[in-house]
Parts: sequence; C-alpha cells; structure tokens
Amino acid sequence: MIAIRPTAPEDEAAILHIASSEPLFDGDDVACIRELLTDYLTRPDHNGYFFLTAHDAGRPVAFACYGPTPLTLGTFDLYWICVDRTRAHRGVGRALIQRVEQEVTQAHGRLIVVETSGLESYAPTRAFYEGIGYQRVAEVPDFYGPGDSLVIYAHHLRTA
Amino acid sequence: MIAIRPTAPEDEAAILHIASSEPLFDGDDVACIRELLTDYLTRPDHNGYFFLTAHDAGRPVAFACYGPTPLTLGTFDLYWICVDRTRAHRGVGRALIQRVEQEVTQAHGRLIVVETSGLESYAPTRAFYEGIGYQRVAEVPDFYGPGDSLVIYAHHLRTA
Repeated sequence: MIAIRPTAPEDEAAILHIASSEPLFDGDDVACIRELLTDYLTRPDHNGYFFLTAHDAGRPVAFACYGPTPLTLGTFDLYWICVDRTRAHRGVGRALIQRVEQEVTQAHGRLIVVETSGLESYAPTRAFYEGIGYQRVAEVPDFYGPGDSLVIYAHHLRTA
Repeated sequence: MIAIRPTAPEDEAAILHIASSEPLFDGDDVACIRELLTDYLTRPDHNGYFFLTAHDAGRPVAFACYGPTPLTLGTFDLYWICVDRTRAHRGVGRALIQRVEQEVTQAHGRLIVVETSGLESYAPTRAFYEGIGYQRVAEVPDFYGPGDSLVIYAHHLRTA
C-alpha cells in the first residue's frame, strides 16, 4: 500500500540513499538533491522547492521534487522524481506524479514542465513520461554535454 | 568609446536603474536581477552568477549576467542582457555578447544558451540573437504564461 506525504525530516536519509543508489544519477545530481532538500526542510519559504515522499509499508521508496518556475505564471518544474529500483514498475512513479499534479493544481499551477536527457540510458525515463501522456515539446542538442541533449516534456493541467 | 569590465559594486545602482527602465522587464524581473547581482557582488562563489558592465564615457550603459548551467558540462546560460534604450542600436549589445563569449570560452564553456519570450514585444530581442548568428533551437508553448512561449537560442563556441 503506497502512501504519499510531504517529505518529513525523518525521510531525509532514505531519500538521499534512494538518490545515491540510482544508476542514472551522478554525484553532482545527488549533491543538488541534497541542497534542494535542505532548502525545503529548513527554509520557511522552502526556496521554492517542494518534496513528496512515497512510502510502501512505512518505508520511503520514492520521492519527487517540484516547484514554481521562477518568472512564469503558473508553470511548475518537476525537478526530480526517483523510485527505488527494487520498487519500480509497480505504479509508484505514476502515483507520485499524480500527487504532484494535484499539489500543483491546488497551487493554481497550469503547466508542468520536465527536463530530461536524450541519452539512450534515459529511454525508460522518456517512455515513462510519454506513457502518462506528457508531451515532448522541445529538444536542445548538446545541452548537458556533447551528444547529450535536453529533452523537454510539458503537461497542461485541467483548470478547476 | 565602449569599455566592458566585470561589474563592480559602484555599478549596482546604475544597473538596477537600467533594468527598471527597460519596458520589457517587470518588477519580478528586476527583483531577480537584484538578487543575482547581490550574489555576484557578495558571495565568494558568486552563486554561479557573473556580471559584466559596459561603460560609455565612464557611464554604465548596459550589463550582462551569465553563468554555468548547473548539471551540464560546459554549457553556460546568458541569463540577462540589457542595454540602456537611449544607447541601443550602437553595437553595445553585440560588444557585450562578444565579451560574454570570450569569458565563457576562457572558462572552458562550449555552448551558450539563451531563453527568451515568443511574444511579439520580444521580436527585436529575437532578431538581435538571430542577427548575431544564435540558433533558435526550441520552443515551449505557454511556458511563461498562456500564449507566452519560451524560445531557446543556442550558440556553439569555437574551442581553442
């Protein structure tokens, strides 16, 4: 049984463990997640970063980080989503995204934007977004590095 | 005679005046520029934001803000460039961009990315980037707001 809640301080170690165990993430990625998580947990304004943790049988198995995109009207970035690989393919990622969409809708968001890589190793990530109906709207060649493009997905939310 | 230098603390008021006087910028834009400029002038690591000021006859007439794009290899964002409108069309913007390109090259950058708006009011901005050979590589509809797309330009630097 999956339960999704705003991330609590006691989830921090588990989230960093999940991120560190993810083969697609390198040390800079994990350092970035750690920094945003610290902002979320310690700053009154969260510095604009919000975290959700998915628990299975009381244990954190996935997290998402999202927040309003600066200088936009109602656009939110889904900065990170990561599922413990031993828990993947069980609907956890999809449930987490749905909860992000609910939270963004409540915050009067209208558009969710996701940035990911065009590398072959990210094909399952892109397939995941395409499978839940996110639209591939743009690509910037060589963005992350030579031969490693930025792929942008967008999803319009139904307004209330 | 245009002189371009790293922005000094004594340029701060003039830069914020130039930004506030720019019809395309709103209060949030100016607040963002103020925050990044404070980071640049006060933090030892500049928080990854670098400013250049263009002076004409000793008076600041334009500025640029750029920095390495997090989690990329050699990509730099040109976050802001703004020329005093009474000084526009005199090559100041072009000279400033060339200096940014030199600085980025020295910092081992290989790609400059610029994000701007697809609104009609930004047509001169887009024409400026296209005129200096920047490539329009992507567009994200409704990014800044309904009907206000994100347009992304990219420029590969010649590596030494």
